[in-house]
Amino acid sequence: MRVYLAGPDVFLPEPLARAAALKAVCARHGLCGVSPLDALAGGDPVSWGGLGEAMRIARRNEAHIAGCAALVANLTPFRGPSADAGTVFELGFMRALGRPVFGWSNSAEPFAARSRAFCRDAAPVDGVWRDEEGMLIEDFPPLADNLMIDGAIAASGGVLVVRGVARGDAWRDLAAFEACVAEVARRLKG
Amino acid sequence: MRVYLAGPDVFLPEPLARAAALKAVCARHGLCGVSPLDALAGGDPVSWGGLGEAMRIARRNEAHIAGCAALVANLTPFRGPSADAGTVFELGFMRALGRPVFGWSNSAEPFAARSRAFCRDAAPVDGVWRDEEGMLIEDFPPLADNLMIDGAIAASGGVLVVRGVARGDAWRDLAAFEACVAEVARRLKG
Repeated sequence: MRVYLAGPDVFLPEPLARAAALKAVCARHGLCGVSPLDALAGGDPVSWGGLGEAMRIARRNEAHIAGCAALVANLTPFRGPSADAGTVFELGFMRALGRPVFGWSNSAEPFAARSRAFCRDAAPVDGVWRDEEGMLIEDFPPLADNLMIDGAIAASGGVLVVRGVARGDAWRDLAAFEACVAEVARRLKG
Repeated sequence: MRVYLAGPDVFLPEPLARAAALKAVCARHGLCGVSPLDALAGGDPVSWGGLGEAMRIARRNEAHIAGCAALVANLTPFRGPSADAGTVFELGFMRALGRPVFGWSNSAEPFAARSRAFCRDAAPVDGVWRDEEGMLIEDFPPLADNLMIDGAIAASGGVLVVRGVARGDAWRDLAAFEACVAEVARRLKG
């Protein structure tokens, strides 16, 4: 059963080694992990020949997702209180295909608290928290990220595994990932 | 023709007034703007009765998107170098439905430059920029955000309109939005 591995893991210094580590965890649970770094079976369509590298990567990732039975997203916060934008896009994409989406994160802090900490001048106004530009800070504890993300995972029959780790281990520790993959295996095969 | 208005505009201090302003622009171009704040025609399904507010909002937004012919996303950077996570999720959702997605942003700075500025300790390592955790900074100028976002808009037949505005006008100026909506009208009716 093919499972797409969404996440900013592709930005790590050794992205191929990371992809291999994630795939090894999947294999232990009887799943075939598909990395954004994998080539497409059959290669890129000829019609993509005129596209630049970024556009080809985007098309390839969409094709990989469409070829998988489920998606597992690394939702560890990335350059801000939310998950990586590319990862969130891919989660929304798979959700619209009607297949189960799963998430894991190495931050156990709820999204509301993380957002307040990020917006240094955040303050309560008439009972709700707002940032320095007056924009509302979404406050639905214990959601792990924007409600579209938690909502999609729950509605699709997936799970979101969060686990606090030491700061330097955010891009190393795979315990939450493995717990998530175990759930994927249980639910896809159940 | 119904067009879903994705964006963190719902977090503004006067979200209903903002939605009305966005819808007025759509109406001028012969389009029906659909806000995440709109009630669903027919109301929420009875099966959602047991869900909490956040989950009902997530389901409602997905239903709104599924009922629209196109999506227009406010991609102005939100609490970090990328667009709002909920907005990006919705863009991915509509892209997977195979309908055109459009974007607009009040930041004209490319994503790569914005990301380097956000990561204060970013530095070039062996020819690529990395942040303080060693994570690569995507560098495909002139992309406006993560390549999945720009890629989806281009592949779907949409456009992305970026326009630099004064710092205090990021959540006020609607010139880029109107230019984007004009393109939606031209392409949907063309």
